[in-house]
Amino acid sequence: MEELKIIELKESVFADNDAEAEKLRGDLKARGQFLLNLMSSPGSGKTTTLAKLIESLKGRYKIGVVEADIDGAVDADEIQRETGARAIQLHTGGMCHLDAGMTRQGIESLDADGLDLIFLENVGNLVCPAEFDTGASKCAVILSVPEGDDKPLKYPLMFEKADVVILNKIDVLPYFDFSMDTFTTYLRARNSHCDLIPISAKTGEGMDKLASWVADEMEAWRK
Amino acid sequence: MEELKIIELKESVFADNDAEAEKLRGDLKARGQFLLNLMSSPGSGKTTTLAKLIESLKGRYKIGVVEADIDGAVDADEIQRETGARAIQLHTGGMCHLDAGMTRQGIESLDADGLDLIFLENVGNLVCPAEFDTGASKCAVILSVPEGDDKPLKYPLMFEKADVVILNKIDVLPYFDFSMDTFTTYLRARNSHCDLIPISAKTGEGMDKLASWVADEMEAWRK
Repeated sequence: MEELKIIELKESVFADNDAEAEKLRGDLKARGQFLLNLMSSPGSGKTTTLAKLIESLKGRYKIGVVEADIDGAVDADEIQRETGARAIQLHTGGMCHLDAGMTRQGIESLDADGLDLIFLENVGNLVCPAEFDTGASKCAVILSVPEGDDKPLKYPLMFEKADVVILNKIDVLPYFDFSMDTFTTYLRARNSHCDLIPISAKTGEGMDKLASWVADEMEAWRK
Repeated sequence: MEELKIIELKESVFADNDAEAEKLRGDLKARGQFLLNLMSSPGSGKTTTLAKLIESLKGRYKIGVVEADIDGAVDADEIQRETGARAIQLHTGGMCHLDAGMTRQGIESLDADGLDLIFLENVGNLVCPAEFDTGASKCAVILSVPEGDDKPLKYPLMFEKADVVILNKIDVLPYFDFSMDTFTTYLRARNSHCDLIPISAKTGEGMDKLASWVADEMEAWRK
């Protein structure tokens, strides 16, 4: 196995992040590469979900992973060890989000030539990452059952930006006061168009549906 | 019951947040008021923990609560309804943290005269709130079992800033891969001096110990 590459991010020099994001999105599209930005709170199960997704898609597509964290390399380590996918770890140096310039640094460091599908695991934070367009093709937001059904009410922008909301850890629904009706009502007040996919990355429930969503969105993007 | 007051925060005008925080801390100390800054991810159980804490301390102390969220008023509503404590809701208008100027706005709006103990429930975010001194007397960080034992590794500053780390939702330890040894090792690598108090706000386990911690720190502060 390759040694894990850890990149200490430099601050972005671009004043206009939106323009830089559009440029990156255009470059990716021209190369036929689909970039999925995964956002969530710390501990929602992003890395486990990602590992399962890669297992189910890696027979069909060449996949790379850009992991971002303030510090540590446990996520990229885990992805590389469990799935064999090419992964790099970005350190944001205290920064609470990724922007398009940082995302580009990550993709270039990954050596992404020939990849079909790149997952960007954003910093664990339900606030700031939603404010910065990374240049990704689509945005996925993961919320886990233990975090509570009221989160779309309290973190509006994150749920507004989602193309898909993945509700993880549904295996522990019996142990938490989480109402699917309440959650759906709050989510739809923020976002009427996104898909909602309940899963348990631990038991595998719903993972087929999520893998199909990713594959379908990628195929549509590449057309 | 009083109607709930919701304050739309203005951006702070102070260039030097550290100086403003020291000033607020001094003002609070002069009035014999203890301000505890509660920080955590969304969904770690801050509000439930707070409601239980207030129940156990309100016979001895006059307590107020400043709740901060980007949007919504569910937390201040819940606190006021369940405990009868004086509470206000701050809306940060998208901002991911509180600073000392915003905290002062909150305390002034709470009409804090005569209170002994003020809880500040910061924005749910394990990154940015740690970067800003609010002027609080002490900082508490809540992590919940479902978030995972690796969080001190990935969110260093938050755990470095803690005077106490409250590990919540220990009632669900059997359903998650959470190693108390791993967690303690990572936590101690970030912070050798903070207290660590495992609790379940749901079942009440550990809440006596937490209430004693708050009362002891408050008494020490007021001396």
